[in-house]
Amino acid sequence: MSDAAYTAMWENLNLDISAHDGLLEVLGKFYGDIYLSQQNRLKGMEYLDFVLSEVHGLRVKELQDAKAAGKKVIGTFCVFVPEELTLAADAVHVGLCSGADAGTEEAEKLVPRNTCALIKSFIGFKLARLCPYTESCDLIVGETTCDGKKKAYEAFSNHVSMHVMEVPQTKTADAKALFKAEVLRHKEALKALTGTEITLENLQKSITIVNEKRKALQRLSRLRAADPAPISGRDALLINQVSFYDDPVRFTQSINTLCDQIEERIEKKEGVVPAGTKRLLVSGCPMAVPNWKLPYVMESSNAVIVGEESCIGSRNVRDLVDETPDTLDGLIDALVDRYMKIDCACFTPNNERMSNVETMAKELNADGVIHYALSFCQPYAHEAIKLNNVLSAKGIPMLSIETDYSMEDVEQLKTRVEAFVEMLD
Amino acid sequence: MSDAAYTAMWENLNLDISAHDGLLEVLGKFYGDIYLSQQNRLKGMEYLDFVLSEVHGLRVKELQDAKAAGKKVIGTFCVFVPEELTLAADAVHVGLCSGADAGTEEAEKLVPRNTCALIKSFIGFKLARLCPYTESCDLIVGETTCDGKKKAYEAFSNHVSMHVMEVPQTKTADAKALFKAEVLRHKEALKALTGTEITLENLQKSITIVNEKRKALQRLSRLRAADPAPISGRDALLINQVSFYDDPVRFTQSINTLCDQIEERIEKKEGVVPAGTKRLLVSGCPMAVPNWKLPYVMESSNAVIVGEESCIGSRNVRDLVDETPDTLDGLIDALVDRYMKIDCACFTPNNERMSNVETMAKELNADGVIHYALSFCQPYAHEAIKLNNVLSAKGIPMLSIETDYSMEDVEQLKTRVEAFVEMLD
Repeated sequence: MSDAAYTAMWENLNLDISAHDGLLEVLGKFYGDIYLSQQNRLKGMEYLDFVLSEVHGLRVKELQDAKAAGKKVIGTFCVFVPEELTLAADAVHVGLCSGADAGTEEAEKLVPRNTCALIKSFIGFKLARLCPYTESCDLIVGETTCDGKKKAYEAFSNHVSMHVMEVPQTKTADAKALFKAEVLRHKEALKALTGTEITLENLQKSITIVNEKRKALQRLSRLRAADPAPISGRDALLINQVSFYDDPVRFTQSINTLCDQIEERIEKKEGVVPAGTKRLLVSGCPMAVPNWKLPYVMESSNAVIVGEESCIGSRNVRDLVDETPDTLDGLIDALVDRYMKIDCACFTPNNERMSNVETMAKELNADGVIHYALSFCQPYAHEAIKLNNVLSAKGIPMLSIETDYSMEDVEQLKTRVEAFVEMLD
Repeated sequence: MSDAAYTAMWENLNLDISAHDGLLEVLGKFYGDIYLSQQNRLKGMEYLDFVLSEVHGLRVKELQDAKAAGKKVIGTFCVFVPEELTLAADAVHVGLCSGADAGTEEAEKLVPRNTCALIKSFIGFKLARLCPYTESCDLIVGETTCDGKKKAYEAFSNHVSMHVMEVPQTKTADAKALFKAEVLRHKEALKALTGTEITLENLQKSITIVNEKRKALQRLSRLRAADPAPISGRDALLINQVSFYDDPVRFTQSINTLCDQIEERIEKKEGVVPAGTKRLLVSGCPMAVPNWKLPYVMESSNAVIVGEESCIGSRNVRDLVDETPDTLDGLIDALVDRYMKIDCACFTPNNERMSNVETMAKELNADGVIHYALSFCQPYAHEAIKLNNVLSAKGIPMLSIETDYSMEDVEQLKTRVEAFVEMLD
């Protein structure tokens, strides 16, 4: 589409065109510096480069086309909102988490200053009219995974159409029953919005689609165990980020093609960095587009990232939904079981996560773990301390980082990460 | 009891005697400055002065006597843990929230620095061996009311014997069902600990005891509508603080005696301050002993506090349990109904609180509201913004304060509160 046609589309979405132009310019430059400057990238990353270059263009146009054809667009901020239900209701599912400071001053009128950058960002993007995804949504689905989001949705819901799912805080049978009730309530909300009843047939189909996406991402994750690392952590993170808003079938196909290329590369013992480069697992809070600061710092510090233990990473990919039940209720139960396996810090206790990090570090041959918590994210800040104790006892080095979206601490982070990587020798 | 006997008791409880002596000295001085210096206090406050002067003495001795007689001591941090169940199980119920900085450095090894002062305080008191209540507990019952406490209990439970109740985040029927399941699970935990089965009879009796306590505190609250204010906010806060650890029957009797005196005073149009003194409602986070900083600042700024919209105040007192059900299950349902009415910021939405604050401000003839949030308490910081919008629309002035337990900001707070009170003219 022409620039003028895109601008017309953004105008229709009521974006602040001049601020949005500025945002795209900064984003383009940032992407060039952090992504396009990389050596030895895989051919298959061209698809991701294209998707990102069209992040507010082609994909948004697809959403408008879908809406024109009568489909609804569902926005989410969390891996607990089942994409399977959205797809079964013949709607489009997009992640709305934002990874850049925007509209912060306006956002701080709705939520306290001491709120994490991710929350302030999605509110700021809305208030500053900078996000075509948010503006395309017919319904935004929140969840009660942390105090910050839970309370922010109350203010946010004055600005967008919202439905909030309660995610319980333990994994008892009674807590699972509550989550099932919430899944059923959400299913009814989707039916009311889309007019499409979720049935055994359409849910089976959508579960398969999302399982296939997760399997492709699992395959990618497994291949990263190779030394030399066949793909950079930045690229792998980008893939996980794009998985939240791209068309799932097309995305799965692209990732499987990319994985074929990675297998060839591994066969030839080729990589993005020399064999023996220090290998890091990054663990903790989600990194939404374009929050590439810490991965860039890590991979500019004589290290390569081999895994993301994060919502935008393993937490969204590890578990599949059982496809075998042959009743709708059985399939809903399978869905609930899968989502209640997520090792989010919102649960107490969340010992699964401790062993999952350890397992990932071992399977991916990581030399150390860098824990990443967004400032004011209490659940992950608490678990950073716990995880450090667990990993220490197992002889796995860990560095704990707390930061936000500003660029002010880049040099300080680089000093700390470099010192940590040197210590791994 | 003699000083030596108390010291021996504290030694038996493994307190750090020299640090504990220092704490009592500071507390005594602080109490003298903030409480005993007040003019026109009610005779009935002598009981509270006595209870507080013996806060780590006589009441702790009573706990040891109860334990020697085979009773168990249950510690809590939250108004969601039903005292009725503790008493029905023939155990002693004590609040463990702490309102002073202690052992902060040690606490910050267990929980992040960006954790609210109340949480760091109860952990610090434990690690520094300064709290005879914590040391007397056979079981400490936590709850999932905020991210900070929920995750802190994971670390804390390595140091004390804990049981955690899940409190849901909405008030749907399914959320209430989860809370009922948690109440039943807690009931079984109490039986396992105490050997006492909770029955219709003992639960009816304990519900009456706790209802009577709440009725006495409701009576006190109502009487504070009078002008001139018959009791200071500091004294009323102290009463609410003591309600969390004193013997409930004795306490109720004392408060009713005090209320008789207040009625006489009102009859004579006497008060602790001149009629027409500006009247403030304080609203927000709990103020645990000896967190008297903000009330002292407020009442040193030409104003009097007429109500505490707080867990240590209206949130613990407003609702009674229906005593009429004649089956154990019916009584448990009544208990669940009562606790699920609490207008805690842990719920989303929590619109009840907004109207409760407005109602309190009107009924108590408050000229303005001071919202108090502990730094890093996300739920109340978010609601401060919402409440300010609601009260503004109703023409009720509100000042939003965020602070912790340090004394560094006293002068700054005083400046802000004085300016707010002046503005009320």
